[in-house]
Amino acid sequence: MERNACTITTDGLPFTQSYQKVTATGGRNDSSSNCSIYMDYNATTPVNTEVIETVTEALQVAWGNPSSSYTPGRKAKELIDWSRENVAQMVGGQPEDIIFTSGGTEANNLVFHTAVKYFWDHQRQLAQNGGNAEPLPHIITSNIEHDSVQLVVDNLIKEEKAKATFLPVSKVTGCIEVDDVIGAVRPTTCLVSVMLANNETGVLMPIAEICQRVKALNQQRDTETPRILLHTDAAQAVGKLRVDVRDLGVDYLTIVGHKFYGPRIGALYVRGPGTSSPVYPMFFGGGQERKFRPGTENTPMIAGLGKAAELVVRNLEVYASHMQEVRDYLEEKLLTVFGKDKLHFNSHFKGSNRLPNTCNVSILGPNLQGRKVLLHCRRLLASVGAACHSDKGNRPSHILLNSGIPYDVAENALRLSVGRATSKEDVDAIIEDLKQAVNEVEVGAAQAGQ
Amino acid sequence: MERNACTITTDGLPFTQSYQKVTATGGRNDSSSNCSIYMDYNATTPVNTEVIETVTEALQVAWGNPSSSYTPGRKAKELIDWSRENVAQMVGGQPEDIIFTSGGTEANNLVFHTAVKYFWDHQRQLAQNGGNAEPLPHIITSNIEHDSVQLVVDNLIKEEKAKATFLPVSKVTGCIEVDDVIGAVRPTTCLVSVMLANNETGVLMPIAEICQRVKALNQQRDTETPRILLHTDAAQAVGKLRVDVRDLGVDYLTIVGHKFYGPRIGALYVRGPGTSSPVYPMFFGGGQERKFRPGTENTPMIAGLGKAAELVVRNLEVYASHMQEVRDYLEEKLLTVFGKDKLHFNSHFKGSNRLPNTCNVSILGPNLQGRKVLLHCRRLLASVGAACHSDKGNRPSHILLNSGIPYDVAENALRLSVGRATSKEDVDAIIEDLKQAVNEVEVGAAQAGQ
Repeated sequence: MERNACTITTDGLPFTQSYQKVTATGGRNDSSSNCSIYMDYNATTPVNTEVIETVTEALQVAWGNPSSSYTPGRKAKELIDWSRENVAQMVGGQPEDIIFTSGGTEANNLVFHTAVKYFWDHQRQLAQNGGNAEPLPHIITSNIEHDSVQLVVDNLIKEEKAKATFLPVSKVTGCIEVDDVIGAVRPTTCLVSVMLANNETGVLMPIAEICQRVKALNQQRDTETPRILLHTDAAQAVGKLRVDVRDLGVDYLTIVGHKFYGPRIGALYVRGPGTSSPVYPMFFGGGQERKFRPGTENTPMIAGLGKAAELVVRNLEVYASHMQEVRDYLEEKLLTVFGKDKLHFNSHFKGSNRLPNTCNVSILGPNLQGRKVLLHCRRLLASVGAACHSDKGNRPSHILLNSGIPYDVAENALRLSVGRATSKEDVDAIIEDLKQAVNEVEVGAAQAGQ
Repeated sequence: MERNACTITTDGLPFTQSYQKVTATGGRNDSSSNCSIYMDYNATTPVNTEVIETVTEALQVAWGNPSSSYTPGRKAKELIDWSRENVAQMVGGQPEDIIFTSGGTEANNLVFHTAVKYFWDHQRQLAQNGGNAEPLPHIITSNIEHDSVQLVVDNLIKEEKAKATFLPVSKVTGCIEVDDVIGAVRPTTCLVSVMLANNETGVLMPIAEICQRVKALNQQRDTETPRILLHTDAAQAVGKLRVDVRDLGVDYLTIVGHKFYGPRIGALYVRGPGTSSPVYPMFFGGGQERKFRPGTENTPMIAGLGKAAELVVRNLEVYASHMQEVRDYLEEKLLTVFGKDKLHFNSHFKGSNRLPNTCNVSILGPNLQGRKVLLHCRRLLASVGAACHSDKGNRPSHILLNSGIPYDVAENALRLSVGRATSKEDVDAIIEDLKQAVNEVEVGAAQAGQ
């Protein structure tokens, strides 16, 4: 169905034709070989073959400027509209609710920029009418968000543009508590932003309940106070489980192509941009995306995102059940090989649901730090946490610590995330890898007298 | 050499395999057919075949997350580094001076955001030390900039974050006057931003002289005043003439892939980002691009930009001389067919140089408005100005008006911009088109008694 990283045998740069062409392997790897087995699908996914074809064809034929009024321009515009429809359908929105962005980071930044500006515009009007303008807007988010949320909020605080509450997730459920969100609301709260699924634990957050409760608060607010806007970063959820903005009740939802076998762009769902929900652009320019996000459209990548969305609409159930079956098989095998006492599943929280593809596990032991174990694996390509933290040395993931995982357990964490084409044979192979790696590390440590 | 729009025979959406594959035609069109001839290369260019191959291969094999530490991630990172070297070489900079962006609009916005923030940081420090902080920074730009500069400045003024001088270009030379720039400098001036080549007239601006003179002023400034930063938007110049940041002396230079047969992303050259020249990021997130521009890298498009840059480095002289030869032939033919009195060349300014590919011409006559003439052309695909203004009705281009072109002449303007594969046969064909179109319009008007 999809290419597996196994077939990556690229060597040498600069990038030339000598890069070996990748062929679809149906995900079946020869587990007796030294071929890599990729289990880091939460970091990024390969690009689906049909998506590649769509991007390539668009590069060839849809290169006209979508703002040009002659045929090549109009064709490019139609292709963008087609993609917009698919992306909207994938998340249960209307085509006009989709704003294409360069990626999830931009989409998240745009939401916070908008919320703060919206608050300020309201306060300015209030002051002009003789009311008491509040000095700073307040944001509610969680303490397990991706950097493209957390660091945006950190910067708003640093620049004295907003105050924020980083709500701790429950150490029992790994999940944000709805009551905590409601309890944190202030008269100046302008935005609640909580991710839909965590990238490391896979735990799903109660977005629908949060939105329902906050909306009830919004209705009680006096007309002078701007309503609290509702955002979820759905980067990890889209393509792995059903995501529907109508069920969730959000005003904004972040979509990231490369997490669901699409290209490296993204989109922001906005419920009625400029009408029901405000959008304050970060860029100014040529008027594209109804001025919400100017810049000549990246037609080929947008087309690819549309194709990736179409595949999700068509096949989500198949993808999700396959991933869950393989992930559950992985956890069974881990238990069989290492035993219950040697393992801690960092994704298992009482009463919480999680992504169907994510297994965050620590193999317990004083020398079995995740990075060390992965270095000893012959074939397994996985990570110990978010890819953008890969340079942060040997500190354990703050996401896991914040989720209540003890320090020495979090140090040993392996984030194993499977994909559409990961097979049980792949699982068998990486289990062998892990067994061997753990043995090597433990023997090495014993010899060194540790 | 490059595909010509002639071969675009796409029909029907959604985008499917039924889109006819484009084959390179070497730019030779059968001028007797009804096949389109694209002469709007300043709006956008087709993507070079080698660039498409590079993007496609990167989509296939370099999909790893560049932040991941295992092989697929490292390979993606190496590919990005390779591209960074090529883009740097194309503009005479160092690889570390290149920040990849989603396009020219983002690059331009980032420069203005940076300049204003830099000024404010300086003023804050000054105030902390008991000095007199100035309230607002001042920006100098021209009155013929692209919307991704002009509207950014308009917004800064509207939000009371900056003051600005939009210097008028000379109506004799179509060019900004260096003395005007120097005369406009105030103690609070934080940025001079003037485009390298205008997108409609093709006129080249004296950036090197501006930078030299402003730098002399910077040296005279007291140490309490931040230096004036220097930016040029080189969107239209790159790939058409030699662009070298060392000769220009700029701190920032905007690069736009789709103007030189590359993909729909861009880059900002910054002379020593974070050291010699400030960069204040607009986004916060995962730390990519040394935190100047976070977000998981669009590896395939970045690879394509690197390939497009490599082609420019290798072939610029061939490209430029071919385009100039064909453009000059076009102007000769226009003169032969319509006669000197029936034409006004809106790109011809005394004492000014211009892009080798741009012919902005008005065919004179009360009924020969550019849009009307183009509608009557069988094959010619061209525009009357910037693509992002294509929805602005029948008003003539403000760029032309600001450049001193009389209103009734500007109304008739046709922007004809040729490309790497435009042939003299293409020119012959579109001259026939124009002759026929002008005849049809004039006969129609005569019959209507206008």
